[in-house]
Amino acid sequence: MVQYRQIDRTLGAIADPTRRAVLERLGRGGDATISELAEPFEISLTGMKKHVGILERAELVTTEKVGRARRCRLGPRRLDELESWIQSYTQMLEARLDRFGAMLERNQTGATK
Amino acid sequence: MVQYRQIDRTLGAIADPTRRAVLERLGRGGDATISELAEPFEISLTGMKKHVGILERAELVTTEKVGRARRCRLGPRRLDELESWIQSYTQMLEARLDRFGAMLERNQTGATK
Repeated sequence: MVQYRQIDRTLGAIADPTRRAVLERLGRGGDATISELAEPFEISLTGMKKHVGILERAELVTTEKVGRARRCRLGPRRLDELESWIQSYTQMLEARLDRFGAMLERNQTGATK
Repeated sequence: MVQYRQIDRTLGAIADPTRRAVLERLGRGGDATISELAEPFEISLTGMKKHVGILERAELVTTEKVGRARRCRLGPRRLDELESWIQSYTQMLEARLDRFGAMLERNQTGATK
């Protein structure tokens, strides 16, 4: 059994384009209420609450009840773990392509001899 | 309306720990059939076929029918687009933390005057 970890929650959270856009909105435009977030995306308050909930569980967003509204801000979580995974994937891919290239070259050298 | 793009398929594909493990298995261990992939994960052939299908649609894996088996290998797709998104997110997060720090400092200076 593979265990679900923080990286799965992070990836699940940012896999949705609306949620990535919400993160960018909060990052560049500053804190916002759920309704302020919902408006430009033309989705319902309930829909936006769900998206924010997923981002909150992934610790990418923190929220605070202020009167009747819920203010959202960017959480402090960095994406270092994900970045490391991508880097190690890229290295693995390059090593594989190198091996494949070397094999092709060996076969070609063999064929022309 | 937000448009679904390649980055969404990539993120959706790698958000699952079994699928990330399959990519690592193919990268380090070389090509494998669906049953060879299914065995160490103790999941059904049908389950593994679904995972491989999602990786294939994200172009992270290519498959080829060889006799009665389907051989899987790592696709050539790199994760550059995702890496750029993470880098721009990190820069945005740092800029936000800097602004927050500067604000705290201003408030503190004001309080001690």
